[in-house]
Amino acid sequence: MATLKQVAAHAEVSVQTVSNALNAPHRLRPDTLERVNRSIELLNYRPNRNARSLRTSAVELIGYCVPDWPNQTHLVMDQFLHALCAAAETSGRHILLFTAPPAVEGMPVYDDLHARRLVDGFVLSQTETHDPRHGWLKEKQIPFVSFGRVWKETTQPGPWVDVDGAAGSALAVQHLYDVGRRRIAFLSWPKSSGLAEDRLAGWRSKCNDLGLPTSGLSVHCGEDTIEEGVRATAALLDSAQPPDGIVALSDILALGALRELGRRGLTPGVDVGVTGFDDSPLAEVVSPGLTSLRQPMDRIASELINILTGTSTGVPAERLLQPELVIRGSSAPG
Amino acid sequence: MATLKQVAAHAEVSVQTVSNALNAPHRLRPDTLERVNRSIELLNYRPNRNARSLRTSAVELIGYCVPDWPNQTHLVMDQFLHALCAAAETSGRHILLFTAPPAVEGMPVYDDLHARRLVDGFVLSQTETHDPRHGWLKEKQIPFVSFGRVWKETTQPGPWVDVDGAAGSALAVQHLYDVGRRRIAFLSWPKSSGLAEDRLAGWRSKCNDLGLPTSGLSVHCGEDTIEEGVRATAALLDSAQPPDGIVALSDILALGALRELGRRGLTPGVDVGVTGFDDSPLAEVVSPGLTSLRQPMDRIASELINILTGTSTGVPAERLLQPELVIRGSSAPG
Repeated sequence: MATLKQVAAHAEVSVQTVSNALNAPHRLRPDTLERVNRSIELLNYRPNRNARSLRTSAVELIGYCVPDWPNQTHLVMDQFLHALCAAAETSGRHILLFTAPPAVEGMPVYDDLHARRLVDGFVLSQTETHDPRHGWLKEKQIPFVSFGRVWKETTQPGPWVDVDGAAGSALAVQHLYDVGRRRIAFLSWPKSSGLAEDRLAGWRSKCNDLGLPTSGLSVHCGEDTIEEGVRATAALLDSAQPPDGIVALSDILALGALRELGRRGLTPGVDVGVTGFDDSPLAEVVSPGLTSLRQPMDRIASELINILTGTSTGVPAERLLQPELVIRGSSAPG
Repeated sequence: MATLKQVAAHAEVSVQTVSNALNAPHRLRPDTLERVNRSIELLNYRPNRNARSLRTSAVELIGYCVPDWPNQTHLVMDQFLHALCAAAETSGRHILLFTAPPAVEGMPVYDDLHARRLVDGFVLSQTETHDPRHGWLKEKQIPFVSFGRVWKETTQPGPWVDVDGAAGSALAVQHLYDVGRRRIAFLSWPKSSGLAEDRLAGWRSKCNDLGLPTSGLSVHCGEDTIEEGVRATAALLDSAQPPDGIVALSDILALGALRELGRRGLTPGVDVGVTGFDDSPLAEVVSPGLTSLRQPMDRIASELINILTGTSTGVPAERLLQPELVIRGSSAPG
């Protein structure tokens, strides 16, 4: 029986392209796909699932635990899952979804899926402060990669990809500064959140660099709801020196800011500039559109898959990626 | 080597419970799980992935195509995926996620996944008017079940589970009537949408039953955005006989209605009652909370899996499920 390599040589393409033809045919140009398929047919090459169990070196099915709902921070989960699947397919792998109880109670499910060889490794996300999953998997020598660092740990227990939240806040502050804002506030989450501390630090540091005030301009919201964003914004606007710009830690809090501005007859982007985080579907549907920091989902997904499948050996398996500021009417009208 | 049946007999549980212990251990009571695990160990029962390829009668991995983003109708996708995974795991199966181009261009991907026996069947969702996927799979004799009917077809090409949109609208109208509303409007989508026609028909029919007017009270929105909801609500409020209730086809359109009411100094739930559809995460975070129709996700998922895995043989494989009205401040203050 012909090998993948022989098919590649016959079709005059790379082994990767043959793998794509088999696993993600829609990613190839039609003429290339046709050429590869012709070679597959001529050489009678037959990949099959049984072959999977004979392989030991490569990750084939990758486990991803679908988080329990409701959780508003999952507004971009469909984007993440799509990107993760696409990245996996590019290397001939697929994503197996599963459910598990949160934190350490869920680990027997991970262990079981791996022990039965249903999956060869895991992508973790929704990391928590002192998240126990990473250390548990490391201890068991089960391959994994994390989207998101484990906060409040001095060393990370395993490979990770994350988005630079501090740099994101700094981008937002710089943008608001560039459009003329000089008192830029920050809507944050409770202090226990490592993610919030990261984004808050970026705001503070950038404000310091630009000579902008920070005193009295950061508000900790109790939870990630529109109502909390309303409350925090009202408090800021009622203060002796109200802000002319607001960087919110999330799109949800930013929506609260937009609503409170509207209530007071202030126009977002004109009277006060507002930015959010994550560029969720909400950012585009509200009016004015919400300026927000987009996570580079395709890049995140391909780095995760590369690290997990070992194609990035030799490079330290830590990737801090930069978010992109998507500017809309809430900070820059017209 | 021991069989599943022997393990079940030894532990004095059903075969299903042993399967759960292996595939979804978190679903069992701790004492049951411990008893089954003890029997597994004593009898040295070892399930493994290789065994999978020897089986032909049962669906083991179920394919689900993760839709491309951005699409605002996916706000409840994480709920659906979680329920689908949980339902699959209860019967010892798992969900394999994949990507494919839309409509008929994506079908070679489905075909390929099935031909290589990576998956044994598919769950379709996000059905479109004249959706070509169902007929294509039926023609190829590839097992599938659809969440959502194929609109504008006289007969459905295969088994389906759906939520009764007409009944949902009727529930919303009845609720608004019960709290004293007598001019209840409907915010719809373009006429080409079968889903919109279904929900619109339920509103019209219930209004007729209750002797309520419908003339001039339905508005077709161009797309599913907050801005379109604002525009439609403004048009209704500017009319000679403005409505005192608004049933919106989606939570997004309902958010538009809430915003326009706020702009005019009208209080949702007091001056005008508003309801949405789908009970997305937005419904809970806005203020006042948005009354909305919740799809019974767990029931939907288990029906889909039961149909696909053949455990519901003998019963017609069509399930029209009832949505549940979740009442919040937008229609019933206090």
